[in-house]
Amino acid sequence: MEGLLLSSNYVRNMVADIALCTDFYELTMAAAYHRLDFETSRRKKNAIFEMFVRKLPRNRSYMVAAGLEQAIYFLTKMKFNNRHISYIKSLKVFKDVGQNFFEYLRRIKFTGTVWAVPEGTILFPNEPIIRIEAPLIEAQIIETYILSMINFQSLIATKASRIVSASKGKPIIEFGSRRAHGPQAGVLAARASYIGGCMGTSNTLAGYKLRIPLFGTMAHSFVMSFDKEEEAFKEFNSLFPSGYLLVDTYDSLTAIKKIIDAGIHTSGIRLDSGDPYYQSIEARRLLDSAGHFSTKIMISGDLNEYLIRDLVNRDAPIDYFGVGTELSTSRDDPAMNGVYKLVGIRTHKPSPSNVKKKYIDNQNDKILYKIKTSPGKKTYPGPKQIHRIIENNMIKEDVIVLEDEKKISGHLHVPLLRKFLENGKILCKMPSVEEIRRYHSQQVNLLPPKFKDLDFVPEVFPVIYSEKLQAMMNQFKPG
Amino acid sequence: MEGLLLSSNYVRNMVADIALCTDFYELTMAAAYHRLDFETSRRKKNAIFEMFVRKLPRNRSYMVAAGLEQAIYFLTKMKFNNRHISYIKSLKVFKDVGQNFFEYLRRIKFTGTVWAVPEGTILFPNEPIIRIEAPLIEAQIIETYILSMINFQSLIATKASRIVSASKGKPIIEFGSRRAHGPQAGVLAARASYIGGCMGTSNTLAGYKLRIPLFGTMAHSFVMSFDKEEEAFKEFNSLFPSGYLLVDTYDSLTAIKKIIDAGIHTSGIRLDSGDPYYQSIEARRLLDSAGHFSTKIMISGDLNEYLIRDLVNRDAPIDYFGVGTELSTSRDDPAMNGVYKLVGIRTHKPSPSNVKKKYIDNQNDKILYKIKTSPGKKTYPGPKQIHRIIENNMIKEDVIVLEDEKKISGHLHVPLLRKFLENGKILCKMPSVEEIRRYHSQQVNLLPPKFKDLDFVPEVFPVIYSEKLQAMMNQFKPG
Repeated sequence: MEGLLLSSNYVRNMVADIALCTDFYELTMAAAYHRLDFETSRRKKNAIFEMFVRKLPRNRSYMVAAGLEQAIYFLTKMKFNNRHISYIKSLKVFKDVGQNFFEYLRRIKFTGTVWAVPEGTILFPNEPIIRIEAPLIEAQIIETYILSMINFQSLIATKASRIVSASKGKPIIEFGSRRAHGPQAGVLAARASYIGGCMGTSNTLAGYKLRIPLFGTMAHSFVMSFDKEEEAFKEFNSLFPSGYLLVDTYDSLTAIKKIIDAGIHTSGIRLDSGDPYYQSIEARRLLDSAGHFSTKIMISGDLNEYLIRDLVNRDAPIDYFGVGTELSTSRDDPAMNGVYKLVGIRTHKPSPSNVKKKYIDNQNDKILYKIKTSPGKKTYPGPKQIHRIIENNMIKEDVIVLEDEKKISGHLHVPLLRKFLENGKILCKMPSVEEIRRYHSQQVNLLPPKFKDLDFVPEVFPVIYSEKLQAMMNQFKPG
Repeated sequence: MEGLLLSSNYVRNMVADIALCTDFYELTMAAAYHRLDFETSRRKKNAIFEMFVRKLPRNRSYMVAAGLEQAIYFLTKMKFNNRHISYIKSLKVFKDVGQNFFEYLRRIKFTGTVWAVPEGTILFPNEPIIRIEAPLIEAQIIETYILSMINFQSLIATKASRIVSASKGKPIIEFGSRRAHGPQAGVLAARASYIGGCMGTSNTLAGYKLRIPLFGTMAHSFVMSFDKEEEAFKEFNSLFPSGYLLVDTYDSLTAIKKIIDAGIHTSGIRLDSGDPYYQSIEARRLLDSAGHFSTKIMISGDLNEYLIRDLVNRDAPIDYFGVGTELSTSRDDPAMNGVYKLVGIRTHKPSPSNVKKKYIDNQNDKILYKIKTSPGKKTYPGPKQIHRIIENNMIKEDVIVLEDEKKISGHLHVPLLRKFLENGKILCKMPSVEEIRRYHSQQVNLLPPKFKDLDFVPEVFPVIYSEKLQAMMNQFKPG
């Protein structure tokens, strides 16, 4: 990332700095926790945090979890070096913090356990995406990175899934790098879009690093750099016979006539301006009348799920959609509001209770359940699991249960959260983007059709809480 | 970036890969250009591209240019390595491309000239932000990175500038990393927000790398990890006497009473939920009645420029605003639609002309002027400069002129575009973020008040074209 960020004399391996991708308060809180841990026995406790989304982005009926691979990578690599420590020590606010905190920070590694839903999973509001259990400082300090990575990729995978549903099988290609929020966001958006069902991307780094299929046509400047439009077409076609020709630099239909007249049998054309319905019909008519039946038509230019649905419903003769800005920025609502909340502290010995907490037996440990009660921001306590009930090959409902609750009998259940990391070590091979994409497509098939309807915005999602969890929550009621 | 992206066995210096942060079509076009250059004399020509924004994001009356430092850094570092070349060669679409293209790509460096407005400059639609003149392949291949970097930072600097104007001098702190579009976007958003006038950020990496002032308070989880809320406050305050205490984990006013009753003299409190107007008034009343006059009040939680303006206009007793999601995603419109268009080709010898081009004398060279005529996407031809006319210490109007046009006499002019790079070499020391921020604040002072009014969305911006440029444009009229 440094290379993407900084002046030329400051080039080092970016991985070295990922630990600093954190909100500053994580470090001050860590110092306060650390001092207390030295004075008390708190260090024997593990904190349990869960990430979930309270409210989906506007108009969304479901979300798609994504970004776990990068989150896990961060957890296994996160480390402070001497330069980081010197910088933190140099800040005035840290002047009263003892040297042993900095020594601790220099050695910190993530040693916790991570449960998460696999990438590509469809989720509804308030369902845990990832659950992290670790010593409090470790679990806290990683918050910002985990949120930023999973929030963004889930945002884009969700948008892509909507667009892909709307196109009813016509392929979507992600073209949004130039409007993504910086070069890294471009690559992450390409990854998330592919997971959400896009056929590929124009982002070359995503192709190189993640083996996502690459697509591209040509820019207006290519056409403009030639004296005559047809020269540009001929030149490009002779080198790239499978390439697509961009026809709207001057006038689209005139350009198509030039292609036909020049005897160029192009694989496809791209239309990037004007009315896509009218343009595609006229283009198809021209191509067919010249016998160019196999020439495909690609449309791009500020497309979104609504425009694509309308074009598909009106049977516009379009073979491919290129979607840029609307997809790579999730333009109609560019934020997934995932939060990361303390839901409990697991400990071996009980401590005095008060109205805000309660112990229950959990195998051999005790859990001190934690909730926040701020207006509109209440959280459910305890480490949770999601039991998804499938009926007639459709999601009937999700039951959010406590981690140790038994399955409800008489239904087909799928527990959605799986253990990915234990004591800081990865337990399984992470799936490829190809596998994640396939899994997401299976998830979409399980989704009742109304959730894929762009005009249906559900007030009530099919999510309920187990009786045990609800009873637990009720005990936290103020008063 | 790799560290931010990929699986654990793939850790190398990110700078190595920035050349691949490009749309795939830049590479196919490069191959086509390259073949042609070998056969003709085209390689003696330089392409001139300009980046500009046709239409500002919704509700914006002006934009703030940002991201140039990172763009320039990219231009001086961009390079393909053997692994990149092998990957590109391995793609089926490149099967007919000759080996000498790959050899050329392996050696390519940016050798061009860059004119740009300094970061922090206020601009209006259609004004060139950056002008790049280089051999066609070099000028083309850098498009995606330049657009993505400048579009995003300009988007956020613009949003920040609006928010800072709305707060009428009350400090704004950027808190949005967890909702930014990935970890890199978090750092870039912190930089752009600071340029736009924010007082600082919570992003630790932005503090470390760019020396942007860091701020932070505490999270709800900190309070929740203690048995009693007041224990959390005492513990934190004793280690960080200048720190702020978060009071809304359970009930804000009760928490403030606990702080007072415990005799904690905190520097400030943060309110993160509920009605900020009512809450700040009640909080101030409680604090003042206990003699805690110097305790500051910070508000956070889904704030934007409109809410801040209203709170400031109603004299809410708020000292600091923490702005997250709305700022770091530019939530009401998350895309700056900057485009990068070929405006001319500079050459030493003329070639046959047609209706779409025209030669004029330009010092010793000839320029072949280029425009695109797609519906709604027309561009003005030629390399341009902006003359800003200042009257009574206010921007009166901007005149877009051809690069070699004389200044209009009788006015105070400021030519906005400066030369930053020549033959691929940086000509000047890039300003610090501190200097850019100061320059932007001077720019805001030159802006007529109506452009800072959140309710004023101008139909007509104070931008005109010089007679020479207009005459040139008219010659391109179809027919």
